[in-house]
Amino acid sequence: MEEQQARTWLATAVEEARTGLAEGGIPIGAALYGADGALLGRGHNRRVQDDDPSMHAETAAFRAAGRQRTYRGTTMVTTLSPCWYCSGLVRQFGISHVVIGEARTFRGGHDWLARHGVRIVLLDDPECVEMMRDFIGRNPALWHEDIGA
Amino acid sequence: MEEQQARTWLATAVEEARTGLAEGGIPIGAALYGADGALLGRGHNRRVQDDDPSMHAETAAFRAAGRQRTYRGTTMVTTLSPCWYCSGLVRQFGISHVVIGEARTFRGGHDWLARHGVRIVLLDDPECVEMMRDFIGRNPALWHEDIGA
Repeated sequence: MEEQQARTWLATAVEEARTGLAEGGIPIGAALYGADGALLGRGHNRRVQDDDPSMHAETAAFRAAGRQRTYRGTTMVTTLSPCWYCSGLVRQFGISHVVIGEARTFRGGHDWLARHGVRIVLLDDPECVEMMRDFIGRNPALWHEDIGA
Repeated sequence: MEEQQARTWLATAVEEARTGLAEGGIPIGAALYGADGALLGRGHNRRVQDDDPSMHAETAAFRAAGRQRTYRGTTMVTTLSPCWYCSGLVRQFGISHVVIGEARTFRGGHDWLARHGVRIVLLDDPECVEMMRDFIGRNPALWHEDIGA
């Protein structure tokens, strides 16, 4: 995957994160792209909005994509390094690539995924870092709840 | 945790699995119990019923429990060894114990969880084995879809 492609796709996840923030939620967004580059699903963290701890950005995008026969060749794009829950999702379903906006404010399981054959593209995007840093600074308890800390 | 306690709790997960089967779904059930022994949430796989690939039994029980400040001391009870997705959930949120009905028809990430400090109780329950064996025999494609195989 070219970096330009990854950055274009990241924009979709960032849009989702901004939508979540505007709703009063945790600003993490994600999107699942097919092997052919088609957008299969997109979503954002819904802990606050739906009182739902199971809807992280990645699981929301996975859910929105509906039932798929295979995830071979698909790419999960997320504004933040995937936590163990979302890393486990990627590994179990054989999602091939993960594009990550940033891993400075939180470092999840992406090295583990790389060891298990998932191609990781870490973009270190300044807007993603800024959005999370600002959010965590203002809402530490909510953030800790979201990652079980 | 005593084995008798684990078996009593497993009965809740088995009830969920039977409900899922009666609905035409994949017969895997789960329940989340609090440190004080209170039932926090219960659920079953909903891939078929809701066209929702994100609702495995464990994630459904976790969701039903709603937002919790901590998962310390909680027990996830499931009829089947948790896949990587559900194992990641347990690890990320710090669920302390996992009671497993059986790991003969599918072996997920429970050894990995044990290495990371989660207490595992594997019951090898004949009814759980029989329910999955029968289901997989009759619906191999659906089962493979559910585990991304």
